[in-house]
Amino acid sequence: MPLPKLPPAVVALVAELKKWPGVGEKTATRYVLHLLGRGPEALSGLKDLFSKVAERVRPCPRCYFLAEGDLCEICSDSSRDASTICVVESAPDLVAIEKMGEYHGLYHVLGGAISAVRGIGPDRLRIRELLDRVEAGNVNEVIVVTGADTEGETTALYIRKALEGKGVRVTRPATGIPMGSSIEFLDGITLMRAMRGRRDI
Amino acid sequence: MPLPKLPPAVVALVAELKKWPGVGEKTATRYVLHLLGRGPEALSGLKDLFSKVAERVRPCPRCYFLAEGDLCEICSDSSRDASTICVVESAPDLVAIEKMGEYHGLYHVLGGAISAVRGIGPDRLRIRELLDRVEAGNVNEVIVVTGADTEGETTALYIRKALEGKGVRVTRPATGIPMGSSIEFLDGITLMRAMRGRRDI
Repeated sequence: MPLPKLPPAVVALVAELKKWPGVGEKTATRYVLHLLGRGPEALSGLKDLFSKVAERVRPCPRCYFLAEGDLCEICSDSSRDASTICVVESAPDLVAIEKMGEYHGLYHVLGGAISAVRGIGPDRLRIRELLDRVEAGNVNEVIVVTGADTEGETTALYIRKALEGKGVRVTRPATGIPMGSSIEFLDGITLMRAMRGRRDI
Repeated sequence: MPLPKLPPAVVALVAELKKWPGVGEKTATRYVLHLLGRGPEALSGLKDLFSKVAERVRPCPRCYFLAEGDLCEICSDSSRDASTICVVESAPDLVAIEKMGEYHGLYHVLGGAISAVRGIGPDRLRIRELLDRVEAGNVNEVIVVTGADTEGETTALYIRKALEGKGVRVTRPATGIPMGSSIEFLDGITLMRAMRGRRDI
C-alpha cells in the first residue's frame, strides 16, 4: 500500500528502511515518523553515525570481521588463543558465537558459503586467505562453523580437503537435538544425525 | 548485554538504533550487520537519505504535518474539503486516518496532548494556530481525534471550549466496542460508553 501524502524525502527513506531484515512498510514508516517526531537533531545525529561507520569500518585484514583502525578487536587481543581459528560465513554468525562467551580463539569470516544455485564458487570466498593463515604456521585447529545446510556442509567439506596435509585438525560442531525441543516435531535428518552420534550417559 | 568486540562506530550506531520504537539490542545489531554486509554503498546511501529528510522536511506552515517545500501534500491538494479540519496529536495519527481513506478534509497536528503529569500546557501545543485557522473563516467543522485517554479527552474538552462562540461545529469520533472484540474481555469504561451510546438497530 502506497504511503499516503508523505513528502518525497520521507518516502525515499521509508523505501530504503524496508530493505532491512524483518522491516515492512508499516515498521519503516513508524521508524521515520518517530525520528521526525524527535526533531532534526535525531536525523542529523543518525546521518553522522552512518557516515562514521561508512568511513571508518573496514574488514579486518586478518580475519575479515569488522574493524576500525588496523586489526579488529578480537585479532588485536593478545589474550586470545591464536592457535585456534573458528571459520564462519558472516559477521552475524561470529557475533552469535562471541555472545556465547565460551570461545577464546580467533576467527575467519568467509563472506558466504559455496552455492551451486547462487553461483558462488570457492574463489568468491576468503578460503585462499584462510590457507595463507594456516600455512603461516602456529595454527593447531580450524573449527568450521558454517551453516548446517547443504551450502554450509559443502563449504565445510571443501575447507577440510583444502587443509589436508597441512598438519592442522579440522573440526565441526556436533549436530544433534537442540535443547528444549520435543522429539515429536524434529525433522528426520536432525534425528538421524543425533542417533548416529549417540553417546554413553 | 554489551556488544561483543564490535568497532566503536558500530557500537555508537547500534546505541542510536536502540532508541527507535520496538528496537532492542539484538534487532539494532542485526540491522547494522545487515547494512555492513551489503557494503559501503548501502551505508552512504542511508546517510544521504537521512540528510535529505533532515534538510528538506519541515512542518507544514498551515497544518504542521510533514512538508517538503511550502505546504504539505494534503494542504496543497485543492480537491480536499477545506471546510473540515481534523485535529490530531501527531503525524502518525494523521497517517493512520489517511490510510483509512474515508476522510477528505484537512488536518491540524497539535504536536501532543495536554498533560498535567508531563507538564504540557495548552500553550505548548498548536492550539492558538488552530484558533487562527478557524477565525480566518470558511471552517464548518472541527473533528477532534485526540487519544481516547485522559490526556486526549482533556485536550478535546479544552479545544471545544476554546472554539465556543466561533460558529463552528466541534465533534469527536464515536467511542464504543471495537470491531472483532469479545464482550467478555472489554474494559468497563469502553463497555459503559458503548451502552450509553446505544442505538436502534
